[in-house]
Amino acid sequence: MSDLSLDDDSGVINVGVDSFVGPLRDAGVDVTTVDWEPPGGVDASLRDEMAALGRYGGQIRDANDRAARRLVEARPVWRDVRTARAELPALDEMALCHSGPPVEWAEMSGPQRGAVIGAILYEGWADDETAAEDLAASGEVDFVPCHDQSAVGPMAGVISPSMPLAVVENEAHGNVAYSTLNEGLGEVLRFGAYTPAVIDHLEWMETDLAPVLSRALDAHGPVDLKRLSATALQMGDEVHNRNVAGTALLIRELAPTLASLDSAGSVSEVLSFLDDNEHFFLNLSMAACKSGADAAADVPWSTVLTAMARNGTEFGIRVSGLGDRWFTTPATVVDGLYFSDYSEADASPDVGDSSIAETTGVGGFAMAASPAITQFVGGHPQEALDYSREMYGITVTENENYALPALDFRGTPTGIDLTRVIETGVQPIINTGIAHREPGVGQIGAGVGRAPRACFLEAMRAFCAAYGDGEPPSEVAE
Amino acid sequence: MSDLSLDDDSGVINVGVDSFVGPLRDAGVDVTTVDWEPPGGVDASLRDEMAALGRYGGQIRDANDRAARRLVEARPVWRDVRTARAELPALDEMALCHSGPPVEWAEMSGPQRGAVIGAILYEGWADDETAAEDLAASGEVDFVPCHDQSAVGPMAGVISPSMPLAVVENEAHGNVAYSTLNEGLGEVLRFGAYTPAVIDHLEWMETDLAPVLSRALDAHGPVDLKRLSATALQMGDEVHNRNVAGTALLIRELAPTLASLDSAGSVSEVLSFLDDNEHFFLNLSMAACKSGADAAADVPWSTVLTAMARNGTEFGIRVSGLGDRWFTTPATVVDGLYFSDYSEADASPDVGDSSIAETTGVGGFAMAASPAITQFVGGHPQEALDYSREMYGITVTENENYALPALDFRGTPTGIDLTRVIETGVQPIINTGIAHREPGVGQIGAGVGRAPRACFLEAMRAFCAAYGDGEPPSEVAE
Repeated sequence: MSDLSLDDDSGVINVGVDSFVGPLRDAGVDVTTVDWEPPGGVDASLRDEMAALGRYGGQIRDANDRAARRLVEARPVWRDVRTARAELPALDEMALCHSGPPVEWAEMSGPQRGAVIGAILYEGWADDETAAEDLAASGEVDFVPCHDQSAVGPMAGVISPSMPLAVVENEAHGNVAYSTLNEGLGEVLRFGAYTPAVIDHLEWMETDLAPVLSRALDAHGPVDLKRLSATALQMGDEVHNRNVAGTALLIRELAPTLASLDSAGSVSEVLSFLDDNEHFFLNLSMAACKSGADAAADVPWSTVLTAMARNGTEFGIRVSGLGDRWFTTPATVVDGLYFSDYSEADASPDVGDSSIAETTGVGGFAMAASPAITQFVGGHPQEALDYSREMYGITVTENENYALPALDFRGTPTGIDLTRVIETGVQPIINTGIAHREPGVGQIGAGVGRAPRACFLEAMRAFCAAYGDGEPPSEVAE
Repeated sequence: MSDLSLDDDSGVINVGVDSFVGPLRDAGVDVTTVDWEPPGGVDASLRDEMAALGRYGGQIRDANDRAARRLVEARPVWRDVRTARAELPALDEMALCHSGPPVEWAEMSGPQRGAVIGAILYEGWADDETAAEDLAASGEVDFVPCHDQSAVGPMAGVISPSMPLAVVENEAHGNVAYSTLNEGLGEVLRFGAYTPAVIDHLEWMETDLAPVLSRALDAHGPVDLKRLSATALQMGDEVHNRNVAGTALLIRELAPTLASLDSAGSVSEVLSFLDDNEHFFLNLSMAACKSGADAAADVPWSTVLTAMARNGTEFGIRVSGLGDRWFTTPATVVDGLYFSDYSEADASPDVGDSSIAETTGVGGFAMAASPAITQFVGGHPQEALDYSREMYGITVTENENYALPALDFRGTPTGIDLTRVIETGVQPIINTGIAHREPGVGQIGAGVGRAPRACFLEAMRAFCAAYGDGEPPSEVAE
């Protein structure tokens, strides 16, 4: 678990902690030890604990290979569009899902509060903004992380019972993941806007968009999201913040079936909506990633991440070998490109589940696929290549299904290894949209952020504590 | 006209021929002269003639700027689909258009002969292959280069009177260009196949595809091909041999209108055909390029190329300041990636008008946009960048509308300068499909070729002869 010699298959260069190498030496691997000081935040006690875990290096390595292989082998298909109430158990009650780790109304960020108000109005649980806020604060509404419901939502990530969800099945592992349908740009709920136009649009999505898409999928059969993502990565998308190709490829594939449905008027309206919304593929990509991440979860001994998610207040991660525990730290503001009239001072701290993309090896990790995105998130095309190259240093494997043309078709860096993040000091990068900090305003920019280190340190300590006795904790024991 | 210092705006480095620099020195430009021997094929007489032209360097430079600006400023839109007979004057008679410079039946390459046979069968001018060959050999059918009819056709490039053509208007300069509609892959006329299935498909294009597209364009309004090409270049297409993005973007744009037409059955069939044909955008891209090339033609004093085209027998070029004269040399076989079961021995020499893409600054010149294409045409992604970089050395300007993300959004190298090709020895590169040398077989590979030098030398000699007296030849005089 401690070697940094990712590219050296003739042996292992061990950095610093001698006890890590025992199992490797025992296995006949040629090990070179060099001086190493762990990067910031690793105190003597954590260092000792990590060193003590070294004796289980082989187990951890095997577990990480297994978890990362699940990410690579996941085969997500878009199967249907169904109502959230029918699919997510938590939404049986008066409840709302939200992005990121758990959070209650009192601590919620502006955009998430705005989206909660909008969802309450959309559900008809309150008649106006004030009543909606009162209800949200009353404790009568349960707030549940999307991630706990096999779901993901971009930005505020609010899912209410009446919303249509994309149903994505991971055909390789049999699990299902969900996401909302992307609303488009402009004034939208996911950025915390809740004007009557936003609510009307959500209603159109429920009554017009969802049934047409559901009928089209029924007639067409499942849409292979893995193939679409792989192709989109050859076409300048990184399938997180740039989805022009994914969306166009999806339209191309569904258009013949859509045109054969007998409701020409609403089909044409649906195709216009898709044509106007270059991010439509984002939510499908997120559900596809989530279906892989859930398949990679709960692998005993694995230090591979299965979630990075933000609620605008906290940034949280989950680790495969630690089940569904969240490790959190305050979310920070993203340094990015701001739309005119806005600056970092207006920005909400980082928010949204869309970092499931990076968690599973695309998005920022696939920046090399997308030099054009630097015009949207800032930076120079060369940096897009550098970001991907850097991420190979903290990941377990390369996803050969997702080839990066500019890196000579090398597979995307996949499976973030908590241990490598701690050892190298390299924080995962995340491409993201930036919401205004006030409810109701919307998107004000986009940028490239880094996952904050503190929650990784906390997770590493928890991992050492959980596995220090040589046994997986009960929640992930096989 | 003789400087090679494309990137040095502080002065001019003159290579070799002193008399070239007179006008520059007169204009106060700082000129450095270095030793230079012209690359192969420039004999003493041509060298002297080029040197003598040096006194008109300022005029030539201005004319080239003007021609290249027309390439950059062209604004092609796809306006309609109409029958060739009604649009191309030559097709009033029993005539067929073909790709490349003029050629008669006796000298035609295999794929072009196959396409001529197919077109004769499709038109009903003969009942079987033998009768079609007899008719083609009889002299009763006129063979006319597409280029002479403001048209272009990929590969064999055969246009017959009943075929539907895309009508592309260059809104900046008011001229119109035409191309056939792309037939798809597999057994197709453009690669010389003429089985009943090929003819049936051409009939379906005439009776089903063309009317639906024409009605959609009528309802939608013209499609902005310049914007689609620019976007496709951000998405891994070079809009010649890779058109995945251009085709998907076109479908995305037209699908809402198509779905609103009242013939759901054939609309769905048309959308399926487009979904199955990732090269559909190619022919539109070619017509768009041709509309720019024609606008850049006939500029007195300009050494900018306005056509590079091949008929499978000869490779020909046209030069703006020399009007519609062709300069030709035998076509060569392209070194590329061959489909399994085929090799260079099976290949037809280079064929098709699609090199209008490179002539106007895209295709191979925009390879840096398309690292993924190296999997189709051969080579390494890094070479894709190198090709584009090399082409800046023989072009007049950069097309800021067509930005190359991997080259930090530098505009595509645009406006091939005959003089620079002669001086540098750098031959324009061309991405191309490869046809089997026998009629009726079809595509057997794809690759990157170089325009042969001989026709450039011939054109340079002709230019010196035409302009040696300080006056443009009558056919281009203003």
